[in-house]
Amino acid sequence: MGITLGDHQYGKAENRIVRIVRDSARHEITDVNVSTCLRGAFEDAHLTGDQGAVLPTDTQKQTAYAYAKTVGLDPIEDYALALATHFVDDVEPVDGARVELEEFAWARVDADGTGDGHDHTWVRSGQEVRVAAVTVEGTADARRTWVTGGLKDLVILKSTGSEFHGFLTDEFTILEPTDDRIMATSLDARWRFDGTPADWNGAYATIKATLASTFADHHSLALQQTLYEMGKAALEAVPELVEVRLSAPNKHHFAYDLEPFGIENHGEVFHADDRPYGLIQASVIRDDAPDAGPAWQQYSGLV
Amino acid sequence: MGITLGDHQYGKAENRIVRIVRDSARHEITDVNVSTCLRGAFEDAHLTGDQGAVLPTDTQKQTAYAYAKTVGLDPIEDYALALATHFVDDVEPVDGARVELEEFAWARVDADGTGDGHDHTWVRSGQEVRVAAVTVEGTADARRTWVTGGLKDLVILKSTGSEFHGFLTDEFTILEPTDDRIMATSLDARWRFDGTPADWNGAYATIKATLASTFADHHSLALQQTLYEMGKAALEAVPELVEVRLSAPNKHHFAYDLEPFGIENHGEVFHADDRPYGLIQASVIRDDAPDAGPAWQQYSGLV
Amino acid sequence: MGITLGDHQYGKAENRIVRIVRDSARHEITDVNVSTCLRGAFEDAHLTGDQGAVLPTDTQKQTAYAYAKTVGLDPIEDYALALATHFVDDVEPVDGARVELEEFAWARVDADGTGDGHDHTWVRSGQEVRVAAVTVEGTADARRTWVTGGLKDLVILKSTGSEFHGFLTDEFTILEPTDDRIMATSLDARWRFDGTPADWNGAYATIKATLASTFADHHSLALQQTLYEMGKAALEAVPELVEVRLSAPNKHHFAYDLEPFGIENHGEVFHADDRPYGLIQASVIRDDAPDAGPAWQQYSGLV
Amino acid sequence: MGITLGDHQYGKAENRIVRIVRDSARHEITDVNVSTCLRGAFEDAHLTGDQGAVLPTDTQKQTAYAYAKTVGLDPIEDYALALATHFVDDVEPVDGARVELEEFAWARVDADGTGDGHDHTWVRSGQEVRVAAVTVEGTADARRTWVTGGLKDLVILKSTGSEFHGFLTDEFTILEPTDDRIMATSLDARWRFDGTPADWNGAYATIKATLASTFADHHSLALQQTLYEMGKAALEAVPELVEVRLSAPNKHHFAYDLEPFGIENHGEVFHADDRPYGLIQASVIRDDAPDAGPAWQQYSGLV
Repeated sequence: MGITLGDHQYGKAENRIVRIVRDSARHEITDVNVSTCLRGAFEDAHLTGDQGAVLPTDTQKQTAYAYAKTVGLDPIEDYALALATHFVDDVEPVDGARVELEEFAWARVDADGTGDGHDHTWVRSGQEVRVAAVTVEGTADARRTWVTGGLKDLVILKSTGSEFHGFLTDEFTILEPTDDRIMATSLDARWRFDGTPADWNGAYATIKATLASTFADHHSLALQQTLYEMGKAALEAVPELVEVRLSAPNKHHFAYDLEPFGIENHGEVFHADDRPYGLIQASVIRDDAPDAGPAWQQYSGLV
Repeated sequence: MGITLGDHQYGKAENRIVRIVRDSARHEITDVNVSTCLRGAFEDAHLTGDQGAVLPTDTQKQTAYAYAKTVGLDPIEDYALALATHFVDDVEPVDGARVELEEFAWARVDADGTGDGHDHTWVRSGQEVRVAAVTVEGTADARRTWVTGGLKDLVILKSTGSEFHGFLTDEFTILEPTDDRIMATSLDARWRFDGTPADWNGAYATIKATLASTFADHHSLALQQTLYEMGKAALEAVPELVEVRLSAPNKHHFAYDLEPFGIENHGEVFHADDRPYGLIQASVIRDDAPDAGPAWQQYSGLV
Repeated sequence: MGITLGDHQYGKAENRIVRIVRDSARHEITDVNVSTCLRGAFEDAHLTGDQGAVLPTDTQKQTAYAYAKTVGLDPIEDYALALATHFVDDVEPVDGARVELEEFAWARVDADGTGDGHDHTWVRSGQEVRVAAVTVEGTADARRTWVTGGLKDLVILKSTGSEFHGFLTDEFTILEPTDDRIMATSLDARWRFDGTPADWNGAYATIKATLASTFADHHSLALQQTLYEMGKAALEAVPELVEVRLSAPNKHHFAYDLEPFGIENHGEVFHADDRPYGLIQASVIRDDAPDAGPAWQQYSGLV
Repeated sequence: MGITLGDHQYGKAENRIVRIVRDSARHEITDVNVSTCLRGAFEDAHLTGDQGAVLPTDTQKQTAYAYAKTVGLDPIEDYALALATHFVDDVEPVDGARVELEEFAWARVDADGTGDGHDHTWVRSGQEVRVAAVTVEGTADARRTWVTGGLKDLVILKSTGSEFHGFLTDEFTILEPTDDRIMATSLDARWRFDGTPADWNGAYATIKATLASTFADHHSLALQQTLYEMGKAALEAVPELVEVRLSAPNKHHFAYDLEPFGIENHGEVFHADDRPYGLIQASVIRDDAPDAGPAWQQYSGLV
């Protein structure tokens, strides 16, 4: 019975790159966390220690910073496409490259109160982190490319408009049904495109706004139902989108029992619990969506 | 040689309370983390295990939730004053009480694009956490009260307008001076009042805006200088403020060396480093500021 | 063009259960974090909000705690098998169930110095967390079961016996080769079995010891080579193991440049860097390993 | 009304230094996180931006790494004393220096099962982090020095031998008394010396063992009582110790209610809750302890 090397890959994770565009007095900022990962003919590195085919992870880092200057970081999808394509095209042993990014949002300081914002000063804003991942396989004549986007840590809460009842029960069921509760989650969403939207940043803004407004406006019978409606609305809003995967912890807010103290609490005071939490995950997908691609290009942990 | 009990205190930390005001269809939300801490005649609990003078921390928790309903959580300073005063006045062995709060900001979802925001749905917003701590000692005829406010995790960055040169050097100094760099910090600020501002929330908004705009507009020769100007501006903006303490990690953004690759990098591509970081701390204070009060009422870790 | 519901699942994540066995004066402790996840006929919950087929996540929690008593938590694999099988067999709409566990190690306090350890007092020990995941699909006549194990956060370092040279270079390569460096990682390993070892806890101990001793004793030409040897050794040590997947951040320890100060530093003083880090991932597998099973039963994020 | 600069200080925080001693084939490792902080004549840096008296934080970093080589890191107290004294003696504007360390424990891999451990490979071990802080003020003829030690994150649990009853009650008290419960904490302890123990590492080992064994062996009527006994025992075990400060979150383990399912649970299955938690803090001190020194030399956040 033999033992062999299975799947393998390597790269440089979490390059924290900040790019300033200073062509005028009004600067622009893009702040990202970049990870690169390569697949290819690296068996010898594992089997004999021969590094002849291995481009060092340090070189991947240098390249990531260099491309931040030559290509720029905005939008992150174009940067990732350029960097991944470089590795596949220009580094002989590389068959496939994957570039993952997290982008952190900044808002201009509004020092003078005009709403224009400061030319070169920002505060980190928002809780959600925009993510993207680009996978490129094969050189020019046989190129395959996958672009996925997403967001994580979007904490959203509605204080009414959410019910939960009529569920299955068994001998371990003691939960009481409710027709009015807080519904809250820290949304983790990933999506994929078939084709290229006219504007990556615009597509992101539309998807995020659609997810949030659907969560807000949809009267919910269960988090499951809300998630499906959110994914469906996003697909309807952006034609190039073909699948949305949603992972939503049900961040429980328990109405606090104040009855022992003679105090009424009609949905006003809640304990925000840490653990455990419900975790609902679903994909919403177009009928004609192409295959999702190789396993290594997919976001992990979602459905 | 004897061994004795020294300072001691106890309480319930990190009650995660969410308060919804639902008097109309347009709800309001306040989301806090509350910690209570009591001082008083608790020696026996330590020395003999006799709990006769000890109000359980569970009771402190119940009380914190009950007051969230009866007093409300907005503004957090009034809630903290009411809760701390209750412990001192109504629980016989308690000589002093301290209530600390963290408040997490939420922004209404703007589902319909009008800017009004949704009636009952919010997203967690902002990076900074508003904090407050109230200490009450002594019952009514000999009451002393201290109210402190602050913020933490306000990440702010300017891409120009910051120099650093002319510093002291010794045999371990290899740093190059610079006349243009990124300056960034994750601000931790605490302040104290003498007297009560007309509006706690308004005072907070003014202080935060003043700190941010001074950071943005002041041409900096060093983070030290910027901090002093920030504290001074805040004191000038809010008459009831008497001291501002600032703790500012110098979050280093190193210009990335692209010269080996023949690429110019004039302040455009930076590596955002994690550790180590400079840490600059300073207090800015009025000449006539009253005493800061007992050690246990002061924010820890700052100057 | 239609939009439909894709893959979906739900469960209760991060139930923090501590189980004490107190049949004698010498207690035993098992401390776990349990997550359950169900698949089945839950489409209506998403499409119409009808919860008739949905066993609440609260019920899953109650069941997880109940089984901690009736089945016990030691070994975690048997607990997970019992719990997952219950959901598949006893809850009609459930087609598949997955139970994931993290287990935290405790060591008895050695209060009397005899080495026996205290009967009922422990300290949390070790950095690594033992993990397991069990997936059960189909009822008795068509049952399929997968058991995977693993560990994470095993931080291991060798101060010599590691080289890195002979690597591929391109125009972005400035890294210097080395024939003696620190090699360190925070190991994340997952493995799967074909068949059931006689003793789950014994198998875990053997695998962990084998991974660590191979890391220590193998003279390394690259982290890639070390990982392959580690996986191979584990497979050789435990016959029921069929695949080991390893994910190893290369936690860089950079020799600190003290030359500007006239101080020699021959591999003695290092800066332990946070980010970025190399990330090497590989699977080592038996030729005759069965299929790894459905995607949802696999550990995420590894190769 | 004037506004002035109050207390101020600055330094370099979190230098992650690893020191290998490789004088023989059997290496030694010390792994620390070092922060330095200076006080002195730095007003001009704040008031005018003049950096002429400011030794850059980068220089402090270089010095910290250089001293790791020339003085060594073991024991951490001697390293901190040397480094702090250097800043006060050799950098003219510096009046006082404070050096804080965290030390992370490593255990040799026992690859051959002999118990000797591997010569140059270790795993990170233990949960607790050893800490020390040294403050030096004044040059040689007027030197004052304070050395404090401590530990944090020592998670310790006893499954019996702990009661809690006879406590004060009021209208918000619903807690039930108990005569047998789990008692668990994540201990944060800081202590100070008068004089120098013969062996810093030995003193640390004795104090830690004494704290743990007292927690284990003392039958507890309240966490307050246990803490006092722990501090007292440590003071009795190490003559140079003059004060021990303990901060102990009461990590609640709630017996899980399985009665609705007809299952008895006599102290066997617990839910380990995250928040809120009781927080008990106490100092145990010798009658003849000298003054604790200036505020900036004290550990923050404890009592």
